[in-house]
This record gives sequence, structure tokens and C-alpha cells, in this order.
Amino acid sequence: MMTKLLALSPLTDENIETLKKYHITVVTPETMIPDEYAEIDIIYGWRSKVISKILKTPNHSLKWIQSFSAGVDFMPLVDLEEHQIILTNASGQKAVPIAESVMSYILHFARGLHVYQTQNHWEPFEKQFTLKELPVIIFGTGRIGQQIATYLQVFGTKVYGVNTTGHPVAGFKETFAINDLKQIPNHIAIVINALPSTPTTNNFFNKSQLELFKELFLFINIGRGSTVNEQDLLAKLNDGSIQHAALDVTKVEPIPNDSQLWQQDNLLLTQHSTWAEESDSLFNIFMKNLPDFLAGKPLSYNVVDYKRGY
Amino acid sequence: MMTKLLALSPLTDENIETLKKYHITVVTPETMIPDEYAEIDIIYGWRSKVISKILKTPNHSLKWIQSFSAGVDFMPLVDLEEHQIILTNASGQKAVPIAESVMSYILHFARGLHVYQTQNHWEPFEKQFTLKELPVIIFGTGRIGQQIATYLQVFGTKVYGVNTTGHPVAGFKETFAINDLKQIPNHIAIVINALPSTPTTNNFFNKSQLELFKELFLFINIGRGSTVNEQDLLAKLNDGSIQHAALDVTKVEPIPNDSQLWQQDNLLLTQHSTWAEESDSLFNIFMKNLPDFLAGKPLSYNVVDYKRGY
Repeated sequence: MMTKLLALSPLTDENIETLKKYHITVVTPETMIPDEYAEIDIIYGWRSKVISKILKTPNHSLKWIQSFSAGVDFMPLVDLEEHQIILTNASGQKAVPIAESVMSYILHFARGLHVYQTQNHWEPFEKQFTLKELPVIIFGTGRIGQQIATYLQVFGTKVYGVNTTGHPVAGFKETFAINDLKQIPNHIAIVINALPSTPTTNNFFNKSQLELFKELFLFINIGRGSTVNEQDLLAKLNDGSIQHAALDVTKVEPIPNDSQLWQQDNLLLTQHSTWAEESDSLFNIFMKNLPDFLAGKPLSYNVVDYKRGY
Repeated sequence: MMTKLLALSPLTDENIETLKKYHITVVTPETMIPDEYAEIDIIYGWRSKVISKILKTPNHSLKWIQSFSAGVDFMPLVDLEEHQIILTNASGQKAVPIAESVMSYILHFARGLHVYQTQNHWEPFEKQFTLKELPVIIFGTGRIGQQIATYLQVFGTKVYGVNTTGHPVAGFKETFAINDLKQIPNHIAIVINALPSTPTTNNFFNKSQLELFKELFLFINIGRGSTVNEQDLLAKLNDGSIQHAALDVTKVEPIPNDSQLWQQDNLLLTQHSTWAEESDSLFNIFMKNLPDFLAGKPLSYNVVDYKRGY
């Protein structure tokens, strides 16, 4: 039996070849004829108008929507639940490129590239570190934090974590509750901020929080710009108690041309682009569920719980 | 029974504490009294004069020398063999820092840091790659090549290798013999040169060899400067068929101030310093053999074969 997939997010020729092997026909809104509305089994991506039309088609066969985004709060969840549609989100889709950017920051400063990149005379910089010499604490132990921990482990780095309750997470040597950080080890060299934006995390990294760590080698933010008090961070970068920082996210984006941030020598700014990669990782998430879907089994990866709304 | 170790290479306080737990007393040439020459069991490091004196001492108890270097060709090997001294070298000692520098180069260019490092206005660079999108070939599958392969594997990179005979090596998807490279895959994005300096590898990477690869993303040399024809490499960096290069080693070191190499924008130079790290890795090599030595068992790690001379 052929399964029909409506592609609302881009698929490569290679993706379409892969789907063919599973006896899946791919249609697009442009090539689809009205008679086909009722025949769509799977939607890959999201476009409100098209999906609304399909849901209104009598006896439609739509069973599964793979969202292109991690958040699904903008979707008509009540409506989808009534139609018994399985909705899967794209959570964790960008964990790999973001975690690789974090590794690029750490190795950049540890292996002296911040010096060599602009130096045009011979002056070897030997104050280098290997990663096992730089214990790390990651604030946020979700998919991104876990991916970073996976990479760091192979380098022999000690990796500590912080989450809401201090519950243990695989890949972390020890974890701490965010409202009880007195017990964190005093030899931490690198802080990685992967906190989400919530009322409690607003300006979380301020002067007093940053002073939990003395003499940090590197402070990284790939979470949300709102979680860091930038003036307090700049003060620490200037008094030398934090040697380097790498920020992918900032309070104001784009950063204005006249911002102090551009002037700070020991600060690397990557302009909210750590998500970037060549390939399409949404398809990989989709493929994790496809075999179960075709076998009529319940899906297990990134399934949205309509009760919780995510 | 106490064992006496003569330290000719530096040991940290922490190292000495560790040795104490094994009932090892550390002496140095400065603190040693003449009577002690006969009592030394282990020498850590090398100093010709001191060692020669010990070997001439009647009934000396010297059994093991841990060399500070990988190469031992400068030592009186015949003499050491006659005295039935076990000699272990420091091969692989620098594999970790060198391999971490290689990872820093790859992530630097893949994650856009070569752009962000000097940019002081908002202009996101999204032409980024994850490492699984950049297949790698490593010339040289020894300790350093293997360490690099270990790191790349956790990022999902396809890693190919080149060695003298094409014999398989753990961690490499496929290996090729250096004199028969016609079969290497055509999708290679990164070439890592970890070749030693021998008559056959002199200027190995010249125009025709570099043309085995079309459109390289990155060319890395952490082997020997003699193995690359720098004019041919510069030509490729200028015509765009090689997008970026990172060289730790060059034909002439230090690189003179007026060298063309400093002027090449898409070339990163790290001035023969990838070996650098904070901690003392010679001690780690030494510790791999110590328990066997104390148990009277044959040593298994980095033992020099006097017949081969290495």
C-alpha cells in the first residue's frame, strides 16, 4: 500500500529516494490536486491554511504531522487532538550543530587560536590546555547539554550539570539544583549556559552568580540572551576574573554597531548562528519515527502531549 | 621494600605524592650522595653524564629508564642492552594535545570562527558545517592519527587513513597504501597530514598529489614541514581549489617576518606549538608501566626493542 506524504518543509532528492524505499509518495501543495486532500497520510512541516483545508475534508486520512519547530504552541492543538492526529516536534534537531559550536569555542581558546588567528609574526603561544585540564559545568541538561557532554567525555573532561532539581543525567559526573549551587566544585574552568528563557532565568548570570566561580577560563552562552547581565559579564572580562567569553546570543539582536560588545577583545560573538549546518536534520528526526508509523505502532520520538501542550 | 627513582625530568608535587603511595623515593642529581649511585632502580628522564656514572658503578641496581623523548637514537643502546636495562620511550606522549589542536582547526573553519573572530558588525555567517558533513582522510595512522580518529568518530565523521601498506587500523573506515591512492573516495573534504619525515615523504604533498582531491575544504599539516611543497599549496589556496589550510609545521621555522605565508588570509599558522599542554603527560606514560615493574612483570608500553633501535 502506498502512503502519501505532503511536504511543506523542503526535502532533498536523496530524502525522496529514501522515502520511495518505504513506498511513500511525496506530494507538494503546488503539485497536489484537490482530490488528493483526503489521501494525505503524513504532513512533513507546517502551513496553517493547507492543514486547515485537509482537516475540513470529509474522511481525510491524515494521521501524523511532523512539525518543523521545537515549539508547537502556535498550532491549533485542540483541533489536532480532536482529529486524533499524532504531532511530533523538532526538539533536539539543532543539538548537534549547537554542541559542535560549543566545542569550537572551547578548543579555540584552549588551543591558542584566539592568538594565532591574527598574529603575523613568529611568537609561539604555549599557554595551551588540553580539555581534561578544564572541568566544565553546563547549566541545562536537556538535549543540547547532553550532546555537549557526549563530546566532552571523549576528551576526558570532567562534566558537571545544573538542572531544576539536581536529578542525575547520563553523561554528567554530578548534577546540582539551580537554586542550590553552594556545593559546586571550586575547580570549574568553563561555564556553559544552555538555560531556556523563563521568568526565573532572567538575568540569572549577574555579578553575584558569576562570583560563584573564581578565575573562569571561559564563559559560554548558547541558551538565551535574556539570562545574562551583560554589564556584569563585561566587568568580569575586564578585571580578569573571567579570561574569555563566547556568546552566540545577546540581549539585543542584531547587536548595534556601536555596542561595547564588539570592542571587547576577549569576547567572541557568533551572532545567533550556532544552529547552522549544511544538511537537513529535520528529516533525521522524522525518520526515527517512520518505521513505527508504517508498522502501525505508537510513535516514540518527540511526540507532543496535547495535555501538556509540548 | 623502597624503590629509588632518580628524576632527571621534572616531577610535580602531585607526581611525587603518587609515587610515595607506591613506596618509591624520589632523588635528584642535586640531592643525591655518591653512595646512592648504586641504589637507583629507575631513571625518569635522561642525562648522559649521570647515567654513564651509574652504569659504571659496580653492582648498580638500575633496571629501567623512562626516556623523555620518542626517539632514542642518541642513546648508547648497545651499552644499555648489555646492562639489561629496560628502556621505554615517550612515543605518543603528545598525541592528545596534537589531536586536540587538529580538532580545533576543523571546528574553527566548520563553525565559522575564522569569520567571527575579526568581525565587528552583525553579519551572520551561515555557511557552516557539522563534522559528519566533512569526510576526512588522515595520512599516517600511528598514535596521533588514531587519536584524531577517536575524536572524529564521536562527531559521526567518516575517517579514512593512509599508511605504508594500506593495512587496516581500528577507528578508520578504510585505509589505503601511500603508493596506491587511486581508490581514495572522491568526497573527501579534509586532508590531515601526519606523515613523518623520511626520504619518501619529502615534498610528498606537491601539485599533483594535492590534485587527487578536488575542492578541499581544509588541508592540515601537523606532521613535518618537509612533506609539503608550500608554493604548490599556496597556489591551490589562491585558486580556491583548497578553501582553507592550517599548518603547525613549515619548511623554515621560525617563519621569517617577510614570508608570504603570513599574508595568506585563508591560512592559519600555529607555529609548531600543538604539543603544548598544562600537565605533564610523560608521567602518564611512565605510570602505565609502573605497576608491572613493581610486580616484577615484563613492561608492555613503549618498550624499546634494542635490535630495531626504537
